[in-house]
Amino acid sequence: MAKVAVVLGDLFNEDEYMKPKQALEDAGHELSVIGIEAGKELKGENGKTTEKPQFGIADVNPHDYDALFIPGGGSPDRLRADERMVSFTKDFLKHEKPVFAICHGPQLLITADGVKGRKMTSWKTIQVDLKNAGADVVDQEVIVDGNYVTSRQPADIPAFIEKSLEKLQ
Amino acid sequence: MAKVAVVLGDLFNEDEYMKPKQALEDAGHELSVIGIEAGKELKGENGKTTEKPQFGIADVNPHDYDALFIPGGGSPDRLRADERMVSFTKDFLKHEKPVFAICHGPQLLITADGVKGRKMTSWKTIQVDLKNAGADVVDQEVIVDGNYVTSRQPADIPAFIEKSLEKLQ
Repeated sequence: MAKVAVVLGDLFNEDEYMKPKQALEDAGHELSVIGIEAGKELKGENGKTTEKPQFGIADVNPHDYDALFIPGGGSPDRLRADERMVSFTKDFLKHEKPVFAICHGPQLLITADGVKGRKMTSWKTIQVDLKNAGADVVDQEVIVDGNYVTSRQPADIPAFIEKSLEKLQ
Repeated sequence: MAKVAVVLGDLFNEDEYMKPKQALEDAGHELSVIGIEAGKELKGENGKTTEKPQFGIADVNPHDYDALFIPGGGSPDRLRADERMVSFTKDFLKHEKPVFAICHGPQLLITADGVKGRKMTSWKTIQVDLKNAGADVVDQEVIVDGNYVTSRQPADIPAFIEKSLEKLQ
C-alpha cells in the first residue's frame, strides 16, 4: 500500500479532491493532506465544504511519500506561489514517482518545470499554458504518460481514479 | 473622454476591479462592465462585494470601445474559457487600443495570443506562463509597452491607475 501526499490550497474543487481521495483510501492507500500551514481552514471553490490540512509544507519530507496527488480548482495556482510547494513537487518528478493532477493541477507542474515533452491534459483554459510550456496536450478524459496521470474536469473523475489506482499497484 | 470596456467574471479581485474603475470614472471616462451574461451576479474573491455586469458578451461590439480593462483574481481564467471573450479581446489587440491588465488579467491576453515579444508583468504565479508564451517579463509594479499597461497585485494599483490614465489622454 502506498503513502500518497495530497497538496491542497484555498478554493480547491471539492469533488476533484474528495472523490479520488476516498477511492484511494478505499483501496487501502494512506493519504496525507498537506497545505501551506497545518490546520488552517481551506475553502472549497463551490462553498460545499472546507478542509484543514493535517500537515504544513514546512513539516513534511517528500522522501516519506510514494506518490503525489494535485486536486484542481483555485488551489494549484495558490500552491505554486509558495517555493516550498514547488520544491516538494520537484522531488516527486526527480524520482519519477506517480503524480496525479486534475483540472488546474498541472499549473503546479508547469512551475515545477515538469511538463516539457510530456503527454498531458488539463482544464481547458490551462491547455494553452501547457502547450506554451512544451507539453504535448491531448483533450481527453485521462492521459497516462509514464508516471503522470492527468485529467480535465470533474466529469473525468472516474477515469482519473481508475488510472491513478493502476499506478499504485 | 474614452469608452472603456471592463471584462468581469466570477471571483474577481475587488480592489483591482473597483479602485481603477472609480479612478477612470472620476477622470471623466465611461466604463461598461461586461460579463458572460448581463445581470448575472458575480462574487468578489475575498467576499467583500458582488457585481452584476451591465452587458453580456453576446450584446457588445468591441468597435464601440476605445480601451479594455481586465481586473485580476479568479476572473480572467473564467473569462478565457469563453471563446466570445477571447474574440472580443483579440479585437482590441488587432486595433492596438489601450489594454490595462492587472494580476491574473494577462491570462486572458495569453489565450488571445497577445503576449509574444511584449514587455509585461503579472501576478507572480502567472509570470512563468507569460514567459513560456514568449513575453519579456519584468517583476515591477507597472510596465508600459505600447498600448499595454500591466501590473502585478493590489499594492500596485496606484501606479497602474496613473499609467492607465496616461494612455487615455
